[in-house]
Amino acid sequence: MSEFDLIERIIAILGDAGTGPGVRLGAGDDAALLVVPDGFELAVTTDTLVAGRHFPAEAPGDLVAQRALGVNLSDLAAMGAQAQHCVVSLTLPAPEVAWVEAFAGGMATAARRHRVAVVGGNLARGPLSITIAAFGIAPCGKALLRSGASPGDTVFVSGRIGAGYAARLADAPAFYEVVPRLALGVALRGVASAAIDVSDGLLADLGHLCAASGVRGEVALEAVPIAAGVEPAAALTAGDDYELLFSAAEAPPAAAEPVTAIGRIVAGAGVAVLNHGKPWSPPDCAGGYRHF
Amino acid sequence: MSEFDLIERIIAILGDAGTGPGVRLGAGDDAALLVVPDGFELAVTTDTLVAGRHFPAEAPGDLVAQRALGVNLSDLAAMGAQAQHCVVSLTLPAPEVAWVEAFAGGMATAARRHRVAVVGGNLARGPLSITIAAFGIAPCGKALLRSGASPGDTVFVSGRIGAGYAARLADAPAFYEVVPRLALGVALRGVASAAIDVSDGLLADLGHLCAASGVRGEVALEAVPIAAGVEPAAALTAGDDYELLFSAAEAPPAAAEPVTAIGRIVAGAGVAVLNHGKPWSPPDCAGGYRHF
Repeated sequence: MSEFDLIERIIAILGDAGTGPGVRLGAGDDAALLVVPDGFELAVTTDTLVAGRHFPAEAPGDLVAQRALGVNLSDLAAMGAQAQHCVVSLTLPAPEVAWVEAFAGGMATAARRHRVAVVGGNLARGPLSITIAAFGIAPCGKALLRSGASPGDTVFVSGRIGAGYAARLADAPAFYEVVPRLALGVALRGVASAAIDVSDGLLADLGHLCAASGVRGEVALEAVPIAAGVEPAAALTAGDDYELLFSAAEAPPAAAEPVTAIGRIVAGAGVAVLNHGKPWSPPDCAGGYRHF
Repeated sequence: MSEFDLIERIIAILGDAGTGPGVRLGAGDDAALLVVPDGFELAVTTDTLVAGRHFPAEAPGDLVAQRALGVNLSDLAAMGAQAQHCVVSLTLPAPEVAWVEAFAGGMATAARRHRVAVVGGNLARGPLSITIAAFGIAPCGKALLRSGASPGDTVFVSGRIGAGYAARLADAPAFYEVVPRLALGVALRGVASAAIDVSDGLLADLGHLCAASGVRGEVALEAVPIAAGVEPAAALTAGDDYELLFSAAEAPPAAAEPVTAIGRIVAGAGVAVLNHGKPWSPPDCAGGYRHF
């Protein structure tokens, strides 16, 4: 099957997942054409998954597609953006048609689930990797940034921390079926003072938020909702949770995704963990997933 | 140097190439925030370069960056879009700081030259490759598509065909210094009935345009402006030229980039080449760069 035939096959499998609100022209031309509604800004993010590093090289195509889209949409969730569109670049060693068809099918499933249109992409030959650029919209000036936390704010996190680590260790379906907290992100507009998603690790990501805000974060270890069976040190540093970590002056309204208060923002810099009021450090204090 | 330090170094090298019109928030948060002016659509394209396949693995970082951005912007040129922003995903085997610094420097140079803001990206460890997603704007309904050619239109091409092929063979600087025909693309709004850039090869790309338009293309071999020293068969099939190929009912106004009439659109399907009126086929008729 030629490159062009394979692209046509992918587009056919995507079907109605290739279009949606704001799509004036989808895949098949030199570029897609998108419409951003008046009064909205476009949030743009990109993330790459490399076989053998970010997922097992032998992982099924449909699962890889779901994870690739999920981790990108998680960044849009952290901005409080409504996910809208994406472009998907797939590099693979050989035209393994069955794998590509499974990948396209998984992408279609994930795109429909998260109401995102796959409006274009690229197919290249090389070591297996996927790069997605994802686009969302937020009312002008309402997106959630990392930089708005103030002393006195409470720190919240959604879900259970360490669940992504456990799923990764077990190569469980949950590792691939990343659920971006898109509805929560939208609900936090005007509520959260700063937000980030937990990809590098809770402490590392809180560090990023605090550095961007020029504040210090204090986490109460006993308050962190840790996934069953995961050591606290691993849970706080391993990453891969794709939960939302945010600061707010007051508790957010009840949302579909429950959130837990885990600490506070104070004046200063850096991040500290207290265990029932006493300083605590994870045995491996490096904190977070390092790409290098 | 850690991943985060390297990202900060890249952002520092990009400097003012990281911002520009329509950038409300650049690199450093979970996503960039862009503004699309009222009355404009956003054109979105993505392209990947893999080391050892799309460029020599030992190529200098600054040249690779220029080519990576240039080939992406060429797709925006083919849409008649004004290039605005891009996100750059770099995957590399090891934190070779000097190479990354050269890459960032080359990206900054190319971004300034083409007036594009690098608003974000991703850094991952893996086999060397670059995926860029590039964004441009065009007034609503004015973008150039592949699908508007009609029988009776003339076929035009900019520049000299085969120059990219010659540069690739020689691994010459011109191979990396791709000059997207952005000004010409904008000038062709309301003039060209259909457009595409010459990346896969003149005949293959004319084939894409004709297929999208439901018409047949006839090329007069003797009219094609072929680069000095290049065999016609190679010139017409090799690709890598990043010139604009378009159809129009009348000759376009004189632009900075000269264009040449090379054929016509007729009823039917497919592409034919005539040499002084006689059917002609390149010895290798496969036509165009194949990724598989």
